[in-house]
Amino acid sequence: MEQRVSLVTLGVADLAAARRFYEALGWRSSSPPEIGVVFFQAGSMVLALWSREELAKDSGVADSGGWGGMALAHNVRSPAEVDAVIAEARAAGATIAREGAPTSWGGYSGAFVDPDGHPWEVAHNPGWTLAADGAVVL
Amino acid sequence: MEQRVSLVTLGVADLAAARRFYEALGWRSSSPPEIGVVFFQAGSMVLALWSREELAKDSGVADSGGWGGMALAHNVRSPAEVDAVIAEARAAGATIAREGAPTSWGGYSGAFVDPDGHPWEVAHNPGWTLAADGAVVL
Repeated sequence: MEQRVSLVTLGVADLAAARRFYEALGWRSSSPPEIGVVFFQAGSMVLALWSREELAKDSGVADSGGWGGMALAHNVRSPAEVDAVIAEARAAGATIAREGAPTSWGGYSGAFVDPDGHPWEVAHNPGWTLAADGAVVL
Repeated sequence: MEQRVSLVTLGVADLAAARRFYEALGWRSSSPPEIGVVFFQAGSMVLALWSREELAKDSGVADSGGWGGMALAHNVRSPAEVDAVIAEARAAGATIAREGAPTSWGGYSGAFVDPDGHPWEVAHNPGWTLAADGAVVL
């Protein structure tokens, strides 16, 4: 198995509403509504939105109905950018879990939870390199 | 917010055991055990393993204890590669949710669930381009 992730799929309750949330953050997808799934190109991988019920079936898991131990992060180039993304998320209707603040690991981060309960940390990590296209290099 | 994911963090019960599972799939990390988190470079992003309890706190969510509506996928270049990765996952101790089989969307896929309940689809999608480095281009 190569050391890479091709797709992260977020199970959602209302596909059109979930798409509007990510569009409000500035994301764009060319997926037509009738296919029932929304694919966003996200760097070298794809972030997808799909019916949570279908995703559970397809993944062979029982749905416990809450959070299940996975989180996403979006790294940016400065503390000010963290605050800007948290503000965008608030405006788009996210729940703000943590306002931007210095972290124990020497960076700066905040966190929001999307309308379907999927958490995103927004972080500036001065120890990680962000390439021009946003790729993270350890 | 730029259209990209920097990090996917999987909450785990036993960090050393979770690391051994991904190492058994061929993944390698240079994170020293004492930092309490394992970072795998995964294409242009990072896949991390971290205490599920810490991740819930950090993300501002309550832990429902099961699956929470997120799934990963690993796309490969042929149906035979799907079967090979499913066999590797089985040997590493994963639960096989679906053996490799043709899909309704014209591809071929199987699925496994890692020891902490995180599902991975392993897929060959003839409609998606995989670059030499594994990047997915819609």
